Amino acid sequence: MRFTIKREQFTKALSMASRAIPNAATNALLLNYRLEVTSKGLEITSSNGNISIWTYIPFEMNGEEVLRDTTEGAILANARFLNDVVHKLDSDEITFEVIDGTYARLIAGKSEFKLTNCQDAEEYPDIDLEPAGNSFTLPAPHLTELVDETAFAAASAMRLVTDVLRAVNLKAVNGQLIAIATDGARVSRKSIPCDEELMLNANVPADALKEIVKMFDGVSEVSLSATEDRAVFSFGNTVAATRLISGNYPFSDSVIPKSFTRYLDVSSRQLIAAIERVSAMTANEKTRVVRLTMEEESVVVSSSSDTNGSAKESIETFEFNGEPLSIAFNADFVIAAIRALGSESITISFAGEMKPFIVRNPDDEAIVELITPMRTR
Amino acid sequence: MRFTIKREQFTKALSMASRAIPNAATNALLLNYRLEVTSKGLEITSSNGNISIWTYIPFEMNGEEVLRDTTEGAILANARFLNDVVHKLDSDEITFEVIDGTYARLIAGKSEFKLTNCQDAEEYPDIDLEPAGNSFTLPAPHLTELVDETAFAAASAMRLVTDVLRAVNLKAVNGQLIAIATDGARVSRKSIPCDEELMLNANVPADALKEIVKMFDGVSEVSLSATEDRAVFSFGNTVAATRLISGNYPFSDSVIPKSFTRYLDVSSRQLIAAIERVSAMTANEKTRVVRLTMEEESVVVSSSSDTNGSAKESIETFEFNGEPLSIAFNADFVIAAIRALGSESITISFAGEMKPFIVRNPDDEAIVELITPMRTR
Repeated sequence: MRFTIKREQFTKALSMASRAIPNAATNALLLNYRLEVTSKGLEITSSNGNISIWTYIPFEMNGEEVLRDTTEGAILANARFLNDVVHKLDSDEITFEVIDGTYARLIAGKSEFKLTNCQDAEEYPDIDLEPAGNSFTLPAPHLTELVDETAFAAASAMRLVTDVLRAVNLKAVNGQLIAIATDGARVSRKSIPCDEELMLNANVPADALKEIVKMFDGVSEVSLSATEDRAVFSFGNTVAATRLISGNYPFSDSVIPKSFTRYLDVSSRQLIAAIERVSAMTANEKTRVVRLTMEEESVVVSSSSDTNGSAKESIETFEFNGEPLSIAFNADFVIAAIRALGSESITISFAGEMKPFIVRNPDDEAIVELITPMRTR
Repeated sequence: MRFTIKREQFTKALSMASRAIPNAATNALLLNYRLEVTSKGLEITSSNGNISIWTYIPFEMNGEEVLRDTTEGAILANARFLNDVVHKLDSDEITFEVIDGTYARLIAGKSEFKLTNCQDAEEYPDIDLEPAGNSFTLPAPHLTELVDETAFAAASAMRLVTDVLRAVNLKAVNGQLIAIATDGARVSRKSIPCDEELMLNANVPADALKEIVKMFDGVSEVSLSATEDRAVFSFGNTVAATRLISGNYPFSDSVIPKSFTRYLDVSSRQLIAAIERVSAMTANEKTRVVRLTMEEESVVVSSSSDTNGSAKESIETFEFNGEPLSIAFNADFVIAAIRALGSESITISFAGEMKPFIVRNPDDEAIVELITPMRTR
């Protein structure tokens, strides 16, 4: 096996594949890239057991030769080392050749590296990246939006919750592709139009989904297919697969209140800044709790802490409709929800002091952020 | 006690004083700033036991009123909270007033903070910031250079070495102010001209010294005084004091070889890049060992690792004088030394395979970097 490749393209492909390289692995083989020269070009495979990536560099790109002097074959090469070295090189091209079995040589400009720790490609686990089940295509920027605006609300891997709360539920219903993420205390829901015929209901791990959409740079379309236990995303020269989390997703739209009694319209920037300042009082506390006290003439953000004191700030510009209301919440949840909406102003709809409330972009019905209030003294 | 202050000046003064605020303290009082309004202005004091800082904001700066509506008095206020809040505020002015004893109020624009965790200023430890002993003045940029080019070579706090190796030795001899730092395996020595009369020999903790020079922004002169156990730096509206480390500094100029048998002239950038690349082979190892193999016609940087393999790179442009030589060293030490010199090309002078070698800027005799080679297989 042998190839000479443009460093720029090699670097890009490795940085894609590196997203599935684990920091540590029970199976040490996964610390390698599987490199294979075929009639297609140079194929690179990586996997951390949950997410697997396959990408290839063809012989030519945009009419320019990027891969030459190849002989077919495959080998496993240490991923961390390859990333590190290829990143530091400054030559235009890199030559890689297997000398025998587990011993390879990398030459770039005046540098020469002998890799004595390569491994037989045959030993690499079987990675199934073939699309299966329903398959459909959607614009890559739409999928990115869907993920950016919802995945943050999934439970983090740190929390001891049922596995399924670490997933984003992707579901096609009546011509809508809906993404929902919840950690039990908040819900983020976004929908985009899709083909009426489409059938899908998959719990995709939020972390994997976030990694996958980061790879869409410059890609216009993504094809997605899902079976019971895995989803496969194909885009450009790359295929990424992730395991799915089984089980019913513990959320239905009936959780979202339909009728509200109060509405607050306010500038996103002003509300976030006030919450940030006021919550400085809760610096040492695990959860930053902030209270919003609203009446027609005034809206005040406040917080208090037994050890530090208390803070309050009145909001200058707002419109509030309804009976006076005071409601406490996790400051970080509200800030994350407002940021996900990405709009200059927001509408918060309340159904009562202890009822979940909804944060919305007044110009975009497709996204809903629901947050459960907190009980305070 | 009460004051209204321009936020910009308050922020700057707090960010100075914050350099002496500990992350955690055996004496919890040190987690506070001592704030005092006097006839001078607003005085802020902080200390972590090793380094202490006093700075003040006068009533007027550059003809502009920055401090007004004051009443004299003092209080201790939580440093972390003040930094956090003042940083997040966007009003032009901030008003701070003590309501009674340990309870204060901070008002800025539409925000109001009640601080119930303030403490009596009388409880703050006595901090002696009066200059004492020999005192002399030098340009602030010279002291910054002295520190930037030497302090990196002091032993880090992590290492189990005698305390004195964590210091930079500042010594005035025959009209030269010399800074020396060594961790036992390398030495960095820089001298600048000073007054012939000056007497000084102080072991200043390297960490404190690095913090202090960071405060020199916009300052032209520093006055330095030292007694047996502490040094005091005065500059602008600020005084910083640090404890000194007692004991003889374990280094004399006689350690620096005077005669050499080989010389290598090489580009700083090229040598650093080659060492960085080649040492990628030693990624998992505690010390990155690299070897330099030199003869008249070729200079090769190489490294090898039992687990990963080996690497070599030849340097394109160089001049080597002397018998062939091969020498191994800690890659990070040589890179740090070259960076400290800040010159485009360097000269390395060798006295033999197991003798310390010297890295120099050919145009600046005032700085010497000495490195001990390493034994390898």
